[in-house]
Amino acid sequence: MATQTAVQRRQLDAVAYNAFLRDCPTQKLLDRISDKWVSLVLVALAGGSQRYSELLRTMPGVSQKMLTQTLRSLERDGLVSRRVTASVPVRVDYELTELGTTLLPVMRAIKDWAECYIEDVDAARERYDSQVNASV
Amino acid sequence: MATQTAVQRRQLDAVAYNAFLRDCPTQKLLDRISDKWVSLVLVALAGGSQRYSELLRTMPGVSQKMLTQTLRSLERDGLVSRRVTASVPVRVDYELTELGTTLLPVMRAIKDWAECYIEDVDAARERYDSQVNASV
Repeated sequence: MATQTAVQRRQLDAVAYNAFLRDCPTQKLLDRISDKWVSLVLVALAGGSQRYSELLRTMPGVSQKMLTQTLRSLERDGLVSRRVTASVPVRVDYELTELGTTLLPVMRAIKDWAECYIEDVDAARERYDSQVNASV
Repeated sequence: MATQTAVQRRQLDAVAYNAFLRDCPTQKLLDRISDKWVSLVLVALAGGSQRYSELLRTMPGVSQKMLTQTLRSLERDGLVSRRVTASVPVRVDYELTELGTTLLPVMRAIKDWAECYIEDVDAARERYDSQVNASV
């Protein structure tokens, strides 16, 4: 019997999962990671670990509550690790885990797409709205 | 002066946009496309146009209200086109536009990631929850 590589095993396993199905746990996971704050935090951590206050500065649009909640979920999902240094004041650093690093290219691609195609989307919206208005 | 290609122009333009900033329109767009139904609809349309009822069957987890709402947003954003055929009953087909096709690989990658790494995420959650419980 040929030896399976880890990637082949993973691909075979993945066949059992289908995010189209309501009861598949991957649909819930897809929902969790389909979140602008998840993409922005992961991309912000791409260059290395950051303190909580640095993340807040990198993402001026985020509230403290939302950032705390996003980081806690990411930590629980194993995508980000939290390191507490017992100093005065206590220092808390966040870093991508190995698993988080596998998601980074996808999160970066979705952010890049938004920045690259915003003008096309804006133009499409103008066309749509003028057609809707013309048909009223 | 060297002639810029369309891609180079696009990359230069993209520098002006930054989804980290609250007031940048790309943050709102990133929010719009960070949606599990957006990924699932785009992936469902990857193989070609589908009727509304076919999409409903492909995505058993979606409600009619959510599917209608998602398709309308995608149409307004220029990612999906809607073709009405005057038959009895009226036939409505949805198809990826050229712009939608540029987003497809990203949406497929996020769905694939969820299906590929669900077990790692589940294991991380178990570890996290048992640590939290142990420290109570």
